[in-house]
Amino acid sequence: MKIGLITIGAELLNGTRTDTNASWIGQSILSVGGNIDWHMTVNDTEESIINSLSLIPSDIKIILCTGGLGPTHDDITPSVLYKHFNDEALFDEEYWNLLTEKFEARGIEIPESNKNQAMKPKIAKIIPNLIGSARGLHFKNNNYQLFAMPGVPSEMKLMMDNYILPIISKLSKIKNYVKLIRTTGIMESSIYEIIKPHLDSKDIDLAFLPRFTGVDLRISSNKDDSIVNFLDKILPLIDKYYYADVDKELEDVLGEILLANKKTISTAESCTGGLISNRLTNTPNSSSYFKGGVVAYSNLLKINLLNVNKETLDKYGAVSEEVASEMAEGVRKQLDVDIGLSTTGIAGPSGGSEKKPIGLVYIGLSSSNYDKVYKFNYTKDRKINKLMTSQAALNILRNYLKH
Amino acid sequence: MKIGLITIGAELLNGTRTDTNASWIGQSILSVGGNIDWHMTVNDTEESIINSLSLIPSDIKIILCTGGLGPTHDDITPSVLYKHFNDEALFDEEYWNLLTEKFEARGIEIPESNKNQAMKPKIAKIIPNLIGSARGLHFKNNNYQLFAMPGVPSEMKLMMDNYILPIISKLSKIKNYVKLIRTTGIMESSIYEIIKPHLDSKDIDLAFLPRFTGVDLRISSNKDDSIVNFLDKILPLIDKYYYADVDKELEDVLGEILLANKKTISTAESCTGGLISNRLTNTPNSSSYFKGGVVAYSNLLKINLLNVNKETLDKYGAVSEEVASEMAEGVRKQLDVDIGLSTTGIAGPSGGSEKKPIGLVYIGLSSSNYDKVYKFNYTKDRKINKLMTSQAALNILRNYLKH
Repeated sequence: MKIGLITIGAELLNGTRTDTNASWIGQSILSVGGNIDWHMTVNDTEESIINSLSLIPSDIKIILCTGGLGPTHDDITPSVLYKHFNDEALFDEEYWNLLTEKFEARGIEIPESNKNQAMKPKIAKIIPNLIGSARGLHFKNNNYQLFAMPGVPSEMKLMMDNYILPIISKLSKIKNYVKLIRTTGIMESSIYEIIKPHLDSKDIDLAFLPRFTGVDLRISSNKDDSIVNFLDKILPLIDKYYYADVDKELEDVLGEILLANKKTISTAESCTGGLISNRLTNTPNSSSYFKGGVVAYSNLLKINLLNVNKETLDKYGAVSEEVASEMAEGVRKQLDVDIGLSTTGIAGPSGGSEKKPIGLVYIGLSSSNYDKVYKFNYTKDRKINKLMTSQAALNILRNYLKH
Repeated sequence: MKIGLITIGAELLNGTRTDTNASWIGQSILSVGGNIDWHMTVNDTEESIINSLSLIPSDIKIILCTGGLGPTHDDITPSVLYKHFNDEALFDEEYWNLLTEKFEARGIEIPESNKNQAMKPKIAKIIPNLIGSARGLHFKNNNYQLFAMPGVPSEMKLMMDNYILPIISKLSKIKNYVKLIRTTGIMESSIYEIIKPHLDSKDIDLAFLPRFTGVDLRISSNKDDSIVNFLDKILPLIDKYYYADVDKELEDVLGEILLANKKTISTAESCTGGLISNRLTNTPNSSSYFKGGVVAYSNLLKINLLNVNKETLDKYGAVSEEVASEMAEGVRKQLDVDIGLSTTGIAGPSGGSEKKPIGLVYIGLSSSNYDKVYKFNYTKDRKINKLMTSQAALNILRNYLKH
């Protein structure tokens, strides 16, 4: 089913913002049997929006539209759409009172300009906004349905998931099965070599989606069976790398394993600077297994809080296998948990030497009957080196717990 | 000067790839007095590309085009363009020999399919590719000029910088000045209320770009003076919220202030789970002022590592003004730094009560002569509550250091 997309906003055209909504929408539509076939990005002016509406190809029956539902003067999408669909905006006193209360609860007087967001259409339907104040609009005419959503990604995504995707799924005659397989610790070309012998089925469409934290595989087919058979063949081959068959983060998967194994964990981070504990605590209820961590940026903290030997630091340096090992053991014992996870390395852009280049990282894991340090050499920039280190550390923990 | 953009590729429509080229191009064009006024994303089929060419608005004299110049079967952009511009593709033996040599130098036999890339137009001009094999094309007709570039970002950017931007700069009569003002801790509508009285100048174009971490203002004008005058008027009014006039993160700004003030800092994080220390350590050389932190997720850690009184925890609970205060003071003293920054709160989605609802957060700041705790009520999901808390904490620190 062909679907059109209009993304509205000067910030998209002038590049102040990258249009991540478009790619998210493109992907989410696939699973309900649709595909974006036409996409215009337009300025938030009446003229541009009207122009884009006039160009919609006749074979497109559903238009998704993001942006321009905010309270300020440049948010003019609704008024253009009301006119285009011969609808009328009425003041929604009930919703205005609700908004006013919400603002009051936060101790803020509601600005007059928010009245823009308290209008409701006479004919069209309202798409509820579960987390923000700008509601979506669902218009219809003889040619197509149009869904207008806010540009704020989290608000847009909830409207898609709860309101729009179910409607498209119903309308779509073909069903497209899509499976996401998330891997980490292996390169795109290496995965390809492993699974190539099993790529014989014509029913399977496979896309590789590489990121710094790993490679996702998107497998799609009109036949559910074909995907199941394909996965039965390839998943055992990539067991060490594959961590989820849904759109989940590694830390969420890890949380489930830690809960199931009734294990507790703490972190001792140097080069990752708190990123690992931040990721672990993104998972709801992580307090049941994550007890806390120490970001030991200075040597003094490594000694005082983690019980790392001063002699080890002096002899081998902070970025060393030995210190990684003592950090992991230290945090495990000091914080009285089952597993200690540590990182020490040179994130860059400075601080490297010939012997210890930028990107050199040690990751330590310590439990009562198992201790190991892993060495990595990353080559990206500071933030990406941190990110890749955190991902490797979490996958080390996952593999330790699973095997 | 109005410029059109056509980005070609099924991977952009189905979301396999996010169109970062479009935002890069949008930004780079601004500086030479142009702006992307029209943007279509189309499939790499003859029909889609021809259709997009037929829709180019008549007031657009320059079209930029990315994608579809590779050697594979689905790279059909050149053949469509040759037809559209009544040009002809000739085999470029010289370039073919060059390509063959390049491949040989890497020990690879050149695939026959690369012959696609060794064609040259009879009339149009070639845009050199300094780092890849697909050359760009520069067409002209009576209505517009069109520049076709590869979709590979690094190759596209070099063509823009070396060939296309200089041409646009020459053609553009006006110069466009753009300034980004980053704020945090104030809503879009409230900032609008404050600066509204100064929005009288017709020379100023103002856009609000709200994020969860704050609102960016993008101010553009043909007159550099107009921007300077406008900023002179509004910046003093939003001093508490405004942290940068370039595209910089709050933690980077803070790093500069901490360095200039020769202050050191440590964090004691509960509800933010390490996010603040992670952000602080994203800044290169942050080890000069950030000594480390404690992620005290459990009460035991708050007591053992941060010296929080057990009585305070029992009497007021972990999420309280009193505990935030003791955490900030504790981490400052335990880690022997100038400033301690703490967070404690209920990030959600569970753990709230009537008295202490989800989203309740306390942020503590402690220095030798100043202690204060700030209270917030957030209403978003777990990750966003964490993000907003980290941003508020960093801005509290910024305001403390500046005043």
